[in-house]
Amino acid sequence: MRDFFYSLIAHRLNKSKFSLFLQSKRIIMTFKITILGSNSAIPTIKRNPTAQLVNHNERFFLVDCAEGTQVQLRKYHIKIQRINHIFISHLHGDHFFGLIGMISSMHLLGRNKELHVYGPPELENIINMQLQASQTELIYPLIFHPFNPDVHDTIYEDDKLTVKTIPLNHHIPTCGFIFKEKKAKRKLRKDVINNLDIHVDEFVKIKNGADFIDDGGKVYENKELTYPPPPPRSYAYCSDTAYHEPVIPYIKDTDLLYHEATFMHDKADVAAEKFHTTTIEAATIALKAHVKKLLIGHFSTRYETTDPMLQEARTVFINTEAAVDGQVFEV
Amino acid sequence: MRDFFYSLIAHRLNKSKFSLFLQSKRIIMTFKITILGSNSAIPTIKRNPTAQLVNHNERFFLVDCAEGTQVQLRKYHIKIQRINHIFISHLHGDHFFGLIGMISSMHLLGRNKELHVYGPPELENIINMQLQASQTELIYPLIFHPFNPDVHDTIYEDDKLTVKTIPLNHHIPTCGFIFKEKKAKRKLRKDVINNLDIHVDEFVKIKNGADFIDDGGKVYENKELTYPPPPPRSYAYCSDTAYHEPVIPYIKDTDLLYHEATFMHDKADVAAEKFHTTTIEAATIALKAHVKKLLIGHFSTRYETTDPMLQEARTVFINTEAAVDGQVFEV
Repeated sequence: MRDFFYSLIAHRLNKSKFSLFLQSKRIIMTFKITILGSNSAIPTIKRNPTAQLVNHNERFFLVDCAEGTQVQLRKYHIKIQRINHIFISHLHGDHFFGLIGMISSMHLLGRNKELHVYGPPELENIINMQLQASQTELIYPLIFHPFNPDVHDTIYEDDKLTVKTIPLNHHIPTCGFIFKEKKAKRKLRKDVINNLDIHVDEFVKIKNGADFIDDGGKVYENKELTYPPPPPRSYAYCSDTAYHEPVIPYIKDTDLLYHEATFMHDKADVAAEKFHTTTIEAATIALKAHVKKLLIGHFSTRYETTDPMLQEARTVFINTEAAVDGQVFEV
Repeated sequence: MRDFFYSLIAHRLNKSKFSLFLQSKRIIMTFKITILGSNSAIPTIKRNPTAQLVNHNERFFLVDCAEGTQVQLRKYHIKIQRINHIFISHLHGDHFFGLIGMISSMHLLGRNKELHVYGPPELENIINMQLQASQTELIYPLIFHPFNPDVHDTIYEDDKLTVKTIPLNHHIPTCGFIFKEKKAKRKLRKDVINNLDIHVDEFVKIKNGADFIDDGGKVYENKELTYPPPPPRSYAYCSDTAYHEPVIPYIKDTDLLYHEATFMHDKADVAAEKFHTTTIEAATIALKAHVKKLLIGHFSTRYETTDPMLQEARTVFINTEAAVDGQVFEV
């Protein structure tokens, strides 16, 4: 779509102007996470329970949807109708009690495009029963995509991204999600391209890997004309889980890992009993999986401030941040 | 219970000290309403959808429970575990989507006493299905009291109060509720009592209407010894409804009527189509029912400020107030 847009522009501009236009745009796709809730279990005034918005290339994905998520979105000036895909990690209330309200509000606000919901199979009945009780016939298509949280599987795919489940170890069937970019096209080397007589129609082919042959028959190999694309980025979200090393192969080398860290490490026994993770354990997973950055969240309500949790995690994995409601993290 | 408490105190104090104690207490029971949400349809940053807390004699009743109600309670420093009875007017989301979260939080916070929920019959399944999906076995008894919203019936009764349903006219079966105090005991005339040699044990009997005979055989009629009790008060809540005169007999002479007024009167056609009421219509019901005070609420999100709605309602019924989240109204 973007290539089509550029080729339209290219037809209206001469080559040097188009080159300037390309240079003026940073052709790096948006990939960022907005924290909508960093608390566990119950909503508090300071911290909402779990939800995050993933913005990849201006496509919006919601990951989990605790009670109050729609108000968080309003608070952070994000239009709920821009969300087309919602992923629910498991059916504990602090991860999905806001979903029915979100679905209803989208209806009341006049949505007409599809909404896709990915979650454990029971979710569909829970939502439908509530819609029936209020005699609501949604004015937009609501499409459920049930998945088995215990299996690592691709549950979403578009031209730029895949989303796969990551089986976790919790009281009830629970999974995380990993958002992985597909390999992008090569980038034109404007310093070379600008000195050749290449029609703009050729640009897309060259970005796709084609060589260029000029009018005199001289062959320019693609690697002379282009830079390799930036490496694909990935965001992994490990929702509620006990310390669980089997996730490591799935999240290996991830750019940003959101891992729950419900407790400080002095509560390691409580964490294990409740199938949750401590700060040190989350950081250990990050370390062993060689992720680039760790984001801890899903904090127990008992912790008024998360600074000590962050400090504790950093003793194991220095590049750690603590989730804060409203904060945006680049992948 | 209070009488028992006083008679215990009476045994430890001499008569004049007990009299002073009685005078120091305002023996008028608390009866107040805290607005937890005054908006309709969807939650906004300024106004939450419908919920109110009724405090009668320090017994706490929740009326409707939109998404976000538990956070509103925290915000206004009301402990959720003090609520023992929740009444749900109908199964539109803006009146009950917060209930499952409230029930879960009570569980997570260690509740052990009963919670009673009164609502349309489908509510029980909706809640239970969500508890099952999360494999939650509540650690406290949750008792459902299904009712038929189309029938005027007593659904709750204690020693001081009854709650009855008020059938309304909405898209789906919907009712309001009327909280009515029972007739209280007579109040002792301390100016008379203090001059007689009456043992404190007699006080309860006199408050219950007994005459008093002194040691010389002289009879003091009860009306000499007591004031009549304050007249019983009542609070009526007319949830979502079109303009509906059949409610008038049920709410006649009510002290405080909360009536929905979703729209200004220029939207009377929209209101009728959506089975809602306008400001003028709510005020007309208040006028015709001779209520003492009207409180309008359930405002459409389209109205940023409710001042014009209040002014419009007052053109018909002067003693009107507009509901504001967090505001407390005495009955």
